[in-house]
Amino acid sequence: MKKNLFRLCLLFVLVVVSVGTAREYFPDLPDYQPLLCDFHMLTLFSDGLVWPTVRVDEAQREGLDAIALSDHIEYQPHKDDLPTHHSRPYEIAVERAKQQNLLLIRGAEITRDTPPGHYNAIFLSDIDPLDTPDFFDCLRAVAGQRAFLFWNHHTWKGVERGQWTETQDKMCAEDLLHGMEVANGDTYYPLAHEWCLRRNLTLIGNSDIHQPSTDYRYAADRHRTLTLVFARERTVESVEEALRAGRTAVWYENQVIGREAFLKPLFARCVTVSQPHYINENGVAFFEVKNNALVDFELKARGQTTPATIAIPAHSTVICKTKMPVEKNEATLSYTVANVLTEPGKGLPVEFSLLSGNTK
Amino acid sequence: MKKNLFRLCLLFVLVVVSVGTAREYFPDLPDYQPLLCDFHMLTLFSDGLVWPTVRVDEAQREGLDAIALSDHIEYQPHKDDLPTHHSRPYEIAVERAKQQNLLLIRGAEITRDTPPGHYNAIFLSDIDPLDTPDFFDCLRAVAGQRAFLFWNHHTWKGVERGQWTETQDKMCAEDLLHGMEVANGDTYYPLAHEWCLRRNLTLIGNSDIHQPSTDYRYAADRHRTLTLVFARERTVESVEEALRAGRTAVWYENQVIGREAFLKPLFARCVTVSQPHYINENGVAFFEVKNNALVDFELKARGQTTPATIAIPAHSTVICKTKMPVEKNEATLSYTVANVLTEPGKGLPVEFSLLSGNTK
Amino acid sequence: MKKNLFRLCLLFVLVVVSVGTAREYFPDLPDYQPLLCDFHMLTLFSDGLVWPTVRVDEAQREGLDAIALSDHIEYQPHKDDLPTHHSRPYEIAVERAKQQNLLLIRGAEITRDTPPGHYNAIFLSDIDPLDTPDFFDCLRAVAGQRAFLFWNHHTWKGVERGQWTETQDKMCAEDLLHGMEVANGDTYYPLAHEWCLRRNLTLIGNSDIHQPSTDYRYAADRHRTLTLVFARERTVESVEEALRAGRTAVWYENQVIGREAFLKPLFARCVTVSQPHYINENGVAFFEVKNNALVDFELKARGQTTPATIAIPAHSTVICKTKMPVEKNEATLSYTVANVLTEPGKGLPVEFSLLSGNTK
Amino acid sequence: MKKNLFRLCLLFVLVVVSVGTAREYFPDLPDYQPLLCDFHMLTLFSDGLVWPTVRVDEAQREGLDAIALSDHIEYQPHKDDLPTHHSRPYEIAVERAKQQNLLLIRGAEITRDTPPGHYNAIFLSDIDPLDTPDFFDCLRAVAGQRAFLFWNHHTWKGVERGQWTETQDKMCAEDLLHGMEVANGDTYYPLAHEWCLRRNLTLIGNSDIHQPSTDYRYAADRHRTLTLVFARERTVESVEEALRAGRTAVWYENQVIGREAFLKPLFARCVTVSQPHYINENGVAFFEVKNNALVDFELKARGQTTPATIAIPAHSTVICKTKMPVEKNEATLSYTVANVLTEPGKGLPVEFSLLSGNTK
Repeated sequence: MKKNLFRLCLLFVLVVVSVGTAREYFPDLPDYQPLLCDFHMLTLFSDGLVWPTVRVDEAQREGLDAIALSDHIEYQPHKDDLPTHHSRPYEIAVERAKQQNLLLIRGAEITRDTPPGHYNAIFLSDIDPLDTPDFFDCLRAVAGQRAFLFWNHHTWKGVERGQWTETQDKMCAEDLLHGMEVANGDTYYPLAHEWCLRRNLTLIGNSDIHQPSTDYRYAADRHRTLTLVFARERTVESVEEALRAGRTAVWYENQVIGREAFLKPLFARCVTVSQPHYINENGVAFFEVKNNALVDFELKARGQTTPATIAIPAHSTVICKTKMPVEKNEATLSYTVANVLTEPGKGLPVEFSLLSGNTK
Repeated sequence: MKKNLFRLCLLFVLVVVSVGTAREYFPDLPDYQPLLCDFHMLTLFSDGLVWPTVRVDEAQREGLDAIALSDHIEYQPHKDDLPTHHSRPYEIAVERAKQQNLLLIRGAEITRDTPPGHYNAIFLSDIDPLDTPDFFDCLRAVAGQRAFLFWNHHTWKGVERGQWTETQDKMCAEDLLHGMEVANGDTYYPLAHEWCLRRNLTLIGNSDIHQPSTDYRYAADRHRTLTLVFARERTVESVEEALRAGRTAVWYENQVIGREAFLKPLFARCVTVSQPHYINENGVAFFEVKNNALVDFELKARGQTTPATIAIPAHSTVICKTKMPVEKNEATLSYTVANVLTEPGKGLPVEFSLLSGNTK
Repeated sequence: MKKNLFRLCLLFVLVVVSVGTAREYFPDLPDYQPLLCDFHMLTLFSDGLVWPTVRVDEAQREGLDAIALSDHIEYQPHKDDLPTHHSRPYEIAVERAKQQNLLLIRGAEITRDTPPGHYNAIFLSDIDPLDTPDFFDCLRAVAGQRAFLFWNHHTWKGVERGQWTETQDKMCAEDLLHGMEVANGDTYYPLAHEWCLRRNLTLIGNSDIHQPSTDYRYAADRHRTLTLVFARERTVESVEEALRAGRTAVWYENQVIGREAFLKPLFARCVTVSQPHYINENGVAFFEVKNNALVDFELKARGQTTPATIAIPAHSTVICKTKMPVEKNEATLSYTVANVLTEPGKGLPVEFSLLSGNTK
Repeated sequence: MKKNLFRLCLLFVLVVVSVGTAREYFPDLPDYQPLLCDFHMLTLFSDGLVWPTVRVDEAQREGLDAIALSDHIEYQPHKDDLPTHHSRPYEIAVERAKQQNLLLIRGAEITRDTPPGHYNAIFLSDIDPLDTPDFFDCLRAVAGQRAFLFWNHHTWKGVERGQWTETQDKMCAEDLLHGMEVANGDTYYPLAHEWCLRRNLTLIGNSDIHQPSTDYRYAADRHRTLTLVFARERTVESVEEALRAGRTAVWYENQVIGREAFLKPLFARCVTVSQPHYINENGVAFFEVKNNALVDFELKARGQTTPATIAIPAHSTVICKTKMPVEKNEATLSYTVANVLTEPGKGLPVEFSLLSGNTK
């Protein structure tokens, strides 16, 4: 009723318009803000089921920083009811994005059968020139707008048809391909992960949402698949600069996937280890491990380190104990963070140092 | 991605299509099933923000039995993008409703300035004849289709403009008005409640949802405002028969609002009181009060009954104690159920009888 | 304050004393009630940390039917503060259990180093005779009271020390051993599971809780490890009869572990499959699968059955679709329930039959 | 089992011992840390139902900073089972508190019939001298240890018997009374609130917990009643210094109760208001209100301020809109925070200033 009332009556009612979150999903890095971005989502202007403004409201409610509407260029099952051109989704959403303080990026999904498959172009100024039969003509139209292109869900017609071929080699040679989805919705692509590392492509994670987004109370294992963009500022330009520089990680289920150069400082801000607050008469040191992120981190000891595992639920503190070496004042604890991946199957190595002299 | 894949490829993928609930919100009555119905919701074909099939999926996911799509006839803010006629929302949704085992009712919202205000007509066969300037012409078109008409959110332009007037008298005299919304979204209308009781109108509660529906994990205080329709069968015809017979209650926040004739047997099925399982040496009897519904019932004692209050959370059992009368084998406990309303501000009176001989 | 006030003042305050649950964790079988039982828990009278009445209140709040207090006979770390004899925990708790309508069973944990390890004796009349140095003397004291004995957490000093040896052979030969813990707290013992099946021992699952029990809002994956006892009545005698007859299953994490003879009818009551409510023009049948239990069931298709998997969240309904055979009116769907185990690693096989003639 | 295993075997197992929270319930003030303190709780050594170490573990798990064990001196219903002296609860808990990094305070509840009622003494060095018949002898023993005394739940035998009398006047005159419980468990005492303000007593809020504490997942309306102590450091000495200086607030249900001098800077840190991120062509400014605390704040406008109400859920951001004055670059918004109480029934007044020039 409220919306109805507002629109029909043109009453000037000043109400709170929406609710988002202030909870830190991830803390800031020394030089960057980890912006939460989703660059792949659909509206009724292709095969999504909601109006473009709904995507803005969902994103704000979930605490995201930036989204790209990326309706299919070549596939529009509702067009008999909803005849329109490619620019409408962005046009409809842009005012709402300003109100909601959300960074809105103009995008489109280039939708060809596999191979070559689907590709998202974002930071476009005009989508119409991409609506052209030849695939490379389309890519060059993207490049002509200095937009950013990534390969979506490469296995969606089976891993055989989603292989890296000469087409992608050619795209890379012409600087037409800049990233790949390493995760899309509830699927992770280890091959894409490897290719990104080997070929210096930016790691991307997206929701590819078609339905309305229903879960806005995020938990470590309940959130959209997203790209963490390590940006200098919260602006569209900064998002673009970071994407081109490859400064991203992917937040997928209870995992963070990225390059070690960014995961290292990110983890250091997410998890802080105190000095021992108590060492008992047997030399057992008690210390706190604090988790400032919405990830349940799982640490597995390397070598002789005790405890053998540390599980730190999101936004929690655990108290751990370890035996201090008899003859020394310092203990070095070595762990692998099992769910922070620098390569497929390879966790992030971390070390902490405990000094016995620091006890209160 | 999944939907995309499915539609583009025309692969014949047989997957689970959706998730609803088996949890009993309300138990069956001896002669009727309490169907959960929402007769007021909008899609993009008026001022809602989702495609008609989304309303079906939301309802199935939330465990509803029947919905009416009720787009405004006279107000369609998206029509420049989405030119269409009144029959499209139902046409688009009907196949999905069959798949989802949801009763889909053709409806429309007659949208006039207040007075006379907004009215929903449901069980229509054709909406087009209602699109006519004169209000009573429109109502007679409704009557001509033997449809059911109820007055929506009567106070939405202020209680002064939403008063019962000669217009409603005339509607009643011609048997054009059959019910009223006693609750709409987060608003309850005590005046409408009184008018329904006094003028024998059917009590209706609806969501009037425009946005996507996000909360599908219902709790006693987190659910759509709905009409409980006490139907003989789970069919559209039974819903209509029950509405015409006035066999409804309104589930609004943590309250159930209705006529005592239906609330009495409903409550008797929702809350069952055991005989004492234990009476101690001081004559204190312990017994169980079990709540089979998704309502947190609040019972206030009348007269000398102890305990003075019984609060029974949804789907829970509480153990209560009371002193058995010294000279008798029976105790009669008299309560008012504070949140089951037979009139504005008047709770349902209930009595339980405990027999001391029944202890195990 | 309330408890304080009550005790100090001796006021006769008649209040609701506790809250449990009415939610069906598991539905009844045709001939049996699935009583929720925990036969292994500690109080301050050995190495637990709460008063015996707390165990009663916790169990009632969590909706359990029966518990055994099973304090260690040979290990009582608080005895310098709390000098007492073995009968006190039961004595202290028994009145509270009557009030709370909970079945309270007198038990004790026979606590020897491994081998032979720890054993719980339940349905004891007197614990003192069990407090004797020789292990077999103790077991014969148990047998003399016609009590029920099961082997606890056999691997707790490592699987090597927890092997089945001549000691257990001798116990079986003398009919001194009747069951084994197949799960204890967060640990499952596949070896114990096999031994129970091979040697006809009763499958037992317990919490072995020492701390206060904090999670009383049960979910499919958040509940105590418990024994489902398929009893004829809700009495201590019926629990004992069912244990001796081996009519149990173990509810461990999101799994149910037991003998096929009982899992088959249990699952049939937990999950019901409707006839198709709709068959479309392509012969695709839509039907409902309803889950009445607090388990997220996972079904994997056998053979050509579609859908390939059915995941049915606890207390939910999912709508599935399958292709009806072209030439026949019936489809038989064959699944393995992956998380209902009849042997270690072996899921329960189930079949459903869909008839095309039944569509509404 | 784990605890059992650990204690029996004396294995040196180094595991994570407990889980607490890192989530900020309340942010730091410029000069003080808001320590979460509970100065009133019972163990089995009086009428509580758990071992003293359980109180430590509960507090750590809930993210508290300091607790006082405060068993009744004159009331010990378990003493036939548990004969002991007053120093045992603290002795038993102190090592565990060191491990858990929890500030443990020695306390006791002086338990006399009302009047004069119950009083907690905390920061005691020796409880035995307080176990003396005469009330004022006892108080002077407290004073002799330079301990801090507050009056508990003054209405617990009815408000008539809990009135301020000459006894309290005398206590104040001798500097024997330093604070009062303004809230205890689920009860708030407006009279105590007034007396504290008028007589310069420290405002205290406590759980008075007797049962095990079960809800460790705090929410705005689900947490223990606690005292926020605005301390310079996280030490027992700093807690004492702050209590004597009256630097406290009470966190009771979804309310914060205190002196305006501390609530003002606390609220300023809890809720931050951005400058407008967007002003549309009609002069409507959109701005963010961010809530960093675990309180759902409710702001009611004073004067002509719009929006009329702002509801900011815990740890959330809401986007609000207001009309900028036509002729000015600045708008001043005036609100009363309805659930931050400076006096009984009186909310905290706050103001925000929006500048139109700051829009991005």
